[in-house]
Amino acid sequence: MREQIESLVREALRNAEKPASSNRMTIPIAVSNRHVHLSEEHIKRLFGRGLKEKKPLSQPGQFAAEETVTLIGPKGKIPGVRVLGPARSSSQVEVSRTDAFQLGVDAPLRLSGNTEGTPGIKLQGPRGQVEIKEGVIVAACHIHMHPEDASRFGVADQDRVTIRSTSSRPVSFHDTVIRVSDKFRLEMHVDFDEANAAFLTAGAEGVLIRP
Amino acid sequence: MREQIESLVREALRNAEKPASSNRMTIPIAVSNRHVHLSEEHIKRLFGRGLKEKKPLSQPGQFAAEETVTLIGPKGKIPGVRVLGPARSSSQVEVSRTDAFQLGVDAPLRLSGNTEGTPGIKLQGPRGQVEIKEGVIVAACHIHMHPEDASRFGVADQDRVTIRSTSSRPVSFHDTVIRVSDKFRLEMHVDFDEANAAFLTAGAEGVLIRP
Repeated sequence: MREQIESLVREALRNAEKPASSNRMTIPIAVSNRHVHLSEEHIKRLFGRGLKEKKPLSQPGQFAAEETVTLIGPKGKIPGVRVLGPARSSSQVEVSRTDAFQLGVDAPLRLSGNTEGTPGIKLQGPRGQVEIKEGVIVAACHIHMHPEDASRFGVADQDRVTIRSTSSRPVSFHDTVIRVSDKFRLEMHVDFDEANAAFLTAGAEGVLIRP
Repeated sequence: MREQIESLVREALRNAEKPASSNRMTIPIAVSNRHVHLSEEHIKRLFGRGLKEKKPLSQPGQFAAEETVTLIGPKGKIPGVRVLGPARSSSQVEVSRTDAFQLGVDAPLRLSGNTEGTPGIKLQGPRGQVEIKEGVIVAACHIHMHPEDASRFGVADQDRVTIRSTSSRPVSFHDTVIRVSDKFRLEMHVDFDEANAAFLTAGAEGVLIRP
């Protein structure tokens, strides 16, 4: 009986290592490049007018604007950083850790919208410069889900899960945050450091390993 | 009995999720920046003389040289790339995927030394330029181990294991290659993309989750 138990345990461990193909639940992974969200006031000061939509993003209502800014940190600048719309109540800058080192800004890992106590930075636009006092973050990886997806995956809003990439350099992202809304479409968002660590390519997918 | 088995299986699965603290086997993680290994001939052509040791590396006999080169790819250049010594039988350039995009070189994931069919690049030194026909790789993450470590971890040379970082953005690196030699000191090597994906800091460690 001992042997039988050990054999069962070994099999369970083996199955835990890789997702069972019979129960494979994949999630498309999108790579977010560095970008900024701006308040109405900052849009006005940087561009002298409102944002122009360049193309819609996968999450309904969100769009990439025609406008870009230059980020100016104590150690370096990054030009051509895309503004995403629509306007938000406060401005926020999302960079990768690689970007943060280049700018010389100690950006902490945060969920979008949670910017209290984070460092500031200067933004340069064609019509002016804005210095924000806080708002520079490295966005924690997260999964947008419709309530129907959440039910299918057996998870709830704010749950943290592990996602294993199916790419050529497979990586598991622990502490990936689930965000559920009936406005969301199923998609995981990672930054370029995470994408490059995993060798993600277009059409990348992840597997939810443990709900 | 069925219940007893299921309970054991559940416990084994729970333990597989996170390393048991009682059996925690940690491995120091070192971050390798982009670097080149050069043949005697290329050292001569680039610098007009042999390498000067700047400081020893953690693996016995290896050193960072005073010398650096500029990598010149079809899309960009990266200056100040460290040469590691001693000389090797053939030259090899190890970059991150981020670097590879910047240079415009489609560097594949390879173990060091396995460069057949990989792309080439130009190297500029103070005394001359060298164009290598192949040798640009993204180094697969790996763990140097002394045979005593291998025995303690229950692994063998060329095994592939999963290492979970203990950092603030925890990531598991699957397919990490074990390399055993009595010349090696226990250390995992990752590149900057992997380090930044995991938010690794000085003194970073990984835990071998499943041998």
